[in-house]
Amino acid sequence: MGINYFRRDDRDLKFVLFEHLALDRLLAYEVYQDFSHDDFSMIIDEALKVCREVLGPAMQDGDREGCTYEDGVVKVAASFHDCWRVMAENGWMAVSRNPEFGGQGLPAVVGGLLAEIFEGANLAFLTYPGLAVGNGHLIENFGTDQDRAMFVEKMYTGVWGGTMCLTEADAGSDVGWLRTKAVPDPEAGDPRIYKIEGSKQFITCGEHDLTENIIHLLLARIEGAPPGTKGISLFIVPKIWVNPDGSLGDPNDVFCSGIEHKMGIQGSSTCSLNFGENGKCRGILLGKPNTGMAKMFQMMNEARIACCLQALGIVASAYDTARQYAKERVQGLPFTNRDAGRVPIIQHEDVRRLLMNLKAGTEAMRAIICKLLFLMDLSHHDPDETVRKQAGQQVELLTPLVKAYSSDFGYQLTRDAIQILAGAGFCSEFPVEQYARDIKIVSIWEGTSYIQSLDLVGRKLGMEGGKVFQDWIQDVMTFTGEHKDDEEFGPDFKLLFKAAQAIGDFAMRYMQYFKEKRLRLIPLSSNNFLDCFAETAMAKLILEQGLIAREKLAGVQAGSADGIFYRGKMETAKYFCRNILPNVFSRHMVLEQEDTSALDIPEEAF
Amino acid sequence: MGINYFRRDDRDLKFVLFEHLALDRLLAYEVYQDFSHDDFSMIIDEALKVCREVLGPAMQDGDREGCTYEDGVVKVAASFHDCWRVMAENGWMAVSRNPEFGGQGLPAVVGGLLAEIFEGANLAFLTYPGLAVGNGHLIENFGTDQDRAMFVEKMYTGVWGGTMCLTEADAGSDVGWLRTKAVPDPEAGDPRIYKIEGSKQFITCGEHDLTENIIHLLLARIEGAPPGTKGISLFIVPKIWVNPDGSLGDPNDVFCSGIEHKMGIQGSSTCSLNFGENGKCRGILLGKPNTGMAKMFQMMNEARIACCLQALGIVASAYDTARQYAKERVQGLPFTNRDAGRVPIIQHEDVRRLLMNLKAGTEAMRAIICKLLFLMDLSHHDPDETVRKQAGQQVELLTPLVKAYSSDFGYQLTRDAIQILAGAGFCSEFPVEQYARDIKIVSIWEGTSYIQSLDLVGRKLGMEGGKVFQDWIQDVMTFTGEHKDDEEFGPDFKLLFKAAQAIGDFAMRYMQYFKEKRLRLIPLSSNNFLDCFAETAMAKLILEQGLIAREKLAGVQAGSADGIFYRGKMETAKYFCRNILPNVFSRHMVLEQEDTSALDIPEEAF
Repeated sequence: MGINYFRRDDRDLKFVLFEHLALDRLLAYEVYQDFSHDDFSMIIDEALKVCREVLGPAMQDGDREGCTYEDGVVKVAASFHDCWRVMAENGWMAVSRNPEFGGQGLPAVVGGLLAEIFEGANLAFLTYPGLAVGNGHLIENFGTDQDRAMFVEKMYTGVWGGTMCLTEADAGSDVGWLRTKAVPDPEAGDPRIYKIEGSKQFITCGEHDLTENIIHLLLARIEGAPPGTKGISLFIVPKIWVNPDGSLGDPNDVFCSGIEHKMGIQGSSTCSLNFGENGKCRGILLGKPNTGMAKMFQMMNEARIACCLQALGIVASAYDTARQYAKERVQGLPFTNRDAGRVPIIQHEDVRRLLMNLKAGTEAMRAIICKLLFLMDLSHHDPDETVRKQAGQQVELLTPLVKAYSSDFGYQLTRDAIQILAGAGFCSEFPVEQYARDIKIVSIWEGTSYIQSLDLVGRKLGMEGGKVFQDWIQDVMTFTGEHKDDEEFGPDFKLLFKAAQAIGDFAMRYMQYFKEKRLRLIPLSSNNFLDCFAETAMAKLILEQGLIAREKLAGVQAGSADGIFYRGKMETAKYFCRNILPNVFSRHMVLEQEDTSALDIPEEAF
Repeated sequence: MGINYFRRDDRDLKFVLFEHLALDRLLAYEVYQDFSHDDFSMIIDEALKVCREVLGPAMQDGDREGCTYEDGVVKVAASFHDCWRVMAENGWMAVSRNPEFGGQGLPAVVGGLLAEIFEGANLAFLTYPGLAVGNGHLIENFGTDQDRAMFVEKMYTGVWGGTMCLTEADAGSDVGWLRTKAVPDPEAGDPRIYKIEGSKQFITCGEHDLTENIIHLLLARIEGAPPGTKGISLFIVPKIWVNPDGSLGDPNDVFCSGIEHKMGIQGSSTCSLNFGENGKCRGILLGKPNTGMAKMFQMMNEARIACCLQALGIVASAYDTARQYAKERVQGLPFTNRDAGRVPIIQHEDVRRLLMNLKAGTEAMRAIICKLLFLMDLSHHDPDETVRKQAGQQVELLTPLVKAYSSDFGYQLTRDAIQILAGAGFCSEFPVEQYARDIKIVSIWEGTSYIQSLDLVGRKLGMEGGKVFQDWIQDVMTFTGEHKDDEEFGPDFKLLFKAAQAIGDFAMRYMQYFKEKRLRLIPLSSNNFLDCFAETAMAKLILEQGLIAREKLAGVQAGSADGIFYRGKMETAKYFCRNILPNVFSRHMVLEQEDTSALDIPEEAF
């Protein structure tokens, strides 16, 4: 076990949960009625403790020991085994999943905050339980009773691991080109059992020594199926065959041919897997033939939200490390007080600005991700069908932008954390450089940021004839209308109003570009649109928080812990609106240029 | 030796040198009159060859083997020894230094292009010759004839290494707090020889096995000297004592107590050094007592320009890797042509946009750095004193902004390169993730980006009562005035004009803030000002290049290599102005908010 650098404070987590979101609305649902605020509070405190004591101290081990590969066998860092045991024994793996199969049945938003905590403590480790539970959920949703009985509980409770086997050497973002094939296995005596043959690469947690078995969910084409994504089916392919009674059979001819050396998350094995090299690999068809992509998309959507939580977790931890360091490190004189003598660097104006970037970025990301998860809870459990539907649509609208923005902005924020620690930030004693390396993968996993932006523009903007987007923008407009003359936040609401107008103009232009077939302008700017949309949505939420904080501040002592916290929230709202939100306007100006030089330039000029 | 990924194209290097800059003006100077265009061209080609064959293939070795430490001894990667030998034997180390001491006497701008090439091939390796030569130059400038005879040629020609020993545990950016002390050594029989005692950390190339000796230039306080930076002296402290006849004496009681594990440049040793643990360390005072800081600043200024070249070299290499990959990797359908079938990803709109970011960023950085070095050549060698003075002032003005911007924007551009390669970019087979890790140090070395921004605002803006800055801005205004109605670049000149206005407004506001003692607003925005200034300055140069390219294009076949190159330069100029330059306007808008939330927030709220 290494040194623990994890030191998340619970205050903002609980502010979001208990003061910002309408949590009681969730607690009124039958499914959650046995939970109370106190339960959630206690669970969060316990999760923080597990991270300080177990997951956090293993984080640098994962990076330094990495994973080792020898003759098909992958071993993870020694302390990861302790992490796995503690997570499994205490039911931390499937916190928001069905209690019937060993989950804890917590609301998605509470599960999200726990995920932020765990991911922030040890992103590389979390890939192992994350994939096990994500895979289990897919089997719970689409499997037969038999599949559920055989696999789900073991995957929710840490007995078995799991993976998503999509990517092949020639089929990455372009998954429809995969070549892994499945043929019916007449000897099996079960029409759902196929012989599998093919190779997958970049398979996260594809092989490891944490569990006795690994359940791969694999995309393959059944012989004779249509080309492209329409002919792809999903298979349960255990590393060790599982008998119908749940006992383990023979090894299933799945061989790990190597692992990748990577920029970050070295503790998470990234594997090349060969299926059926000896003609003995079998898979169980999950659901109907040729429906694999749709099913995988369900998991992909969950995984995209998991990505948001990964980015948030890392950024929050980078902020925690930086603020701690800035309070302890004494160096230099502040610009505005040259007589102050040497001060802790938190008193240096630029360090303070960078810390505010991190604080505002972290809290705005937390606000929007929790909002997304809260909406997801509504979409699943609200008794009113219209509420469920509308909440679900808002989740669909927001998912791509939160995924892409939090991973990209998060990468930039980890840079700020390194800059605060300066030379020490570039060295590996402190974990900030590892945070920067670890978080980079999040903008690539589950569809790059560009793919998210095409999803936003190509699919989500047009949902219900544009109404879902219009509802969102109307909501922002109403909010700014109510508060535009606010004495304290007036300038912020004006900026938010202007930003929403810019977003609206983006959307109008896109409609026009589609109509006029000026399609080139769309993919050249969709990433800018996504970033603008995300910042506007985050600004709205951080201003909601600022208003709440002001109201609460009136009821507490200014110098009390709560008083300082609320004052901090108010300043953070201003900082976000006045320093980060204005990025919207330069991106909008770029859009107005309607520049196509990137496509006009001859390819040979590169 | 590993795989070579270095593949810099010479075309833009030669465009800058032979078509953009007024090179003949330099060749008219006596000091350069023996050189011709052909000489420079041949030297560049040779440097590219050395990088492809020697430095490039060692880059990943440096990262993977790193440096090893045992009992005070540091060993570098095996292939770094070959790099050293080739660089030394062929006179590549001190290309722009005095031929009298083994340098090649090339103009600074040509030396800069060579440095871009070498740094881009192997940044970690280049730290060793870079520091040897930089140190040698300081001794050449400030040493006695005896010092020069003893040290300089050996440091220019690869016989001995060198270091800058500034940082101590408690004195980083705040160098005035250093504790290393020097006391006269009565036994030495030379009043310039002192006993040295103290510890330094983060010393780049502080210990290694490339050379038989390492000449440390060390800052220390002579006993009884004033506190702070005014009492600091500079000493030549050889690892092995050097006798007056140049022969090696005894080890000089310099002990390396450890090396750092870092985010990047693992091939470059970052050392903790103990001087005089056994009371036997001696140093030679360089120049007069208590003048160490001023001398170190000369080296620092050179080192800051070296940082620009490091950032440029890495970014250009990241661009090279990304464009090569994008041309070869076939995946997916372009957004604007769904019937195209699978295409090389360079035909994907977003990949093209990211490549344009990299191309425009690289070429604009190259343009401004070469301009800076060209001005430096003028400042040293022009026969007209006014020209020398004004050119020198422009160098002083531009240095902090190019240093900070190229390192920070460069980091962001390496992110774009990773994104182009996606999953493969996160893995270590391709070097892009290493570029991202290696380049990060550049924003910290030789004063963080914030320190550069304070230098810009606090010292450089006010040079000659503001005239140096005003001359710069007037130059931009004149340029935009001449071309504002240009049919092709009109919109770009309008943006540039507006950007220059914004820069002017920043400067006006700063004067006002100083006058009204609203000092807090300055350090909170100085980094934004620096970035705006840099982008405006780069936009001007890239537009100059666009105009030249258009003129040249008229005289060549459109489909010829030159035709494609010139067309590419024109589109690149547009891309920079229409996609990168507009960032100025959101940062200016941030300034207009005059937000102080980062300082108003209670410290305890972090």
